[in-house]
Amino acid sequence: MKFDPTLYLVTDSTGRTDDDFLSILEKALTGGVTLVQLREKERGGGEYLRLARLTKAVCDRYRVPLIIDDRADIAMAADAAGVHVGQSDLPVCEARKLLGEDKIVGATAKTVEQAQKAYREGADYLGTGAIFPTTTKVKTVLTPVSRLNDVCRSVPIPVVAIGGLNAGNMDVLNGSPIDGIAVVSAIMKSADPEAAARELFARVRVIKENNR
Amino acid sequence: MKFDPTLYLVTDSTGRTDDDFLSILEKALTGGVTLVQLREKERGGGEYLRLARLTKAVCDRYRVPLIIDDRADIAMAADAAGVHVGQSDLPVCEARKLLGEDKIVGATAKTVEQAQKAYREGADYLGTGAIFPTTTKVKTVLTPVSRLNDVCRSVPIPVVAIGGLNAGNMDVLNGSPIDGIAVVSAIMKSADPEAAARELFARVRVIKENNR
Repeated sequence: MKFDPTLYLVTDSTGRTDDDFLSILEKALTGGVTLVQLREKERGGGEYLRLARLTKAVCDRYRVPLIIDDRADIAMAADAAGVHVGQSDLPVCEARKLLGEDKIVGATAKTVEQAQKAYREGADYLGTGAIFPTTTKVKTVLTPVSRLNDVCRSVPIPVVAIGGLNAGNMDVLNGSPIDGIAVVSAIMKSADPEAAARELFARVRVIKENNR
Repeated sequence: MKFDPTLYLVTDSTGRTDDDFLSILEKALTGGVTLVQLREKERGGGEYLRLARLTKAVCDRYRVPLIIDDRADIAMAADAAGVHVGQSDLPVCEARKLLGEDKIVGATAKTVEQAQKAYREGADYLGTGAIFPTTTKVKTVLTPVSRLNDVCRSVPIPVVAIGGLNAGNMDVLNGSPIDGIAVVSAIMKSADPEAAARELFARVRVIKENNR
């Protein structure tokens, strides 16, 4: 399945009503988010699936693929575009077997070794970080931009930078051969998610164009 | 898939090495466990799958089906016999769709209403309880035996009693039309898991025979 990793929104619905969450999502999509990942570590499977379906209905209207974090079964039941697996989740090759060749399988890779392994096992894209400390993960090991760049050059699939990125600090990515950035708080916690997405998208596009 | 719910072991590998865990499992199977559920709420998908495969290899030698708690994707990737879903997990109908007709889908049902809904959606068996307080779940709402009996009579599929059951307290089930019991601690925490399983199996068989 084709996808554009330029501005990848990873969701955080914690403490929000469905309506509030979906409203932020819709504003983010209007602002230019190109890919969405639903990440709901705290919800049981029933709630996760319910929210996945609501989220997919919104994403579908913007023709933006929805990726499900970790759980291939939820991705399949919701007919999402794919699944994202971290280093402690299902292995990439198992997620690929379950979802088939037409779906997107993304993986977290913090090193060149992890990146090449994920690529060999069939990953369609990689998320690499954390570039900055993040409030959405308790334990964060930072990835220097130099290593991010090594990861980008080590595999022929798109790599997105992740971890605490926002408009105020993403200058560190100037010159980095990334294919996009993934953000949670910079959009989900913004007072104006549409404007935040629009600015982030423009900034990433400049980085990508300068690297051509 | 055919299965015998008479003595259903629900695992708890917390704090154990693989070898220790698999050794207890093997003793329990030798003692007469007829069905096994791997329940690993605290493990990531990768670890869950790894342990599922190890567990299945042991269960296969005893020709005892292995059920995976909650995660249909792990069940599929490990080619387990089926999945067990609680009220906050994937709905029974979704688990059934993912696994197909040949696999076992079990469900937790605490009331007649939940039991009939799970049966209508395609459940192969039900787990009902907790009959007694249990240390393996933080929040336990007790199910009186009278309601367990109502659940048994409300559906044409096997019902197993669960929740704090052991050889010392299972007399409360005399006269109950159950098809089996599910236990964690009574076997997993026993100094002699084989003897514990043997005694529990014998006791359940007496209850079942007296109810014919």
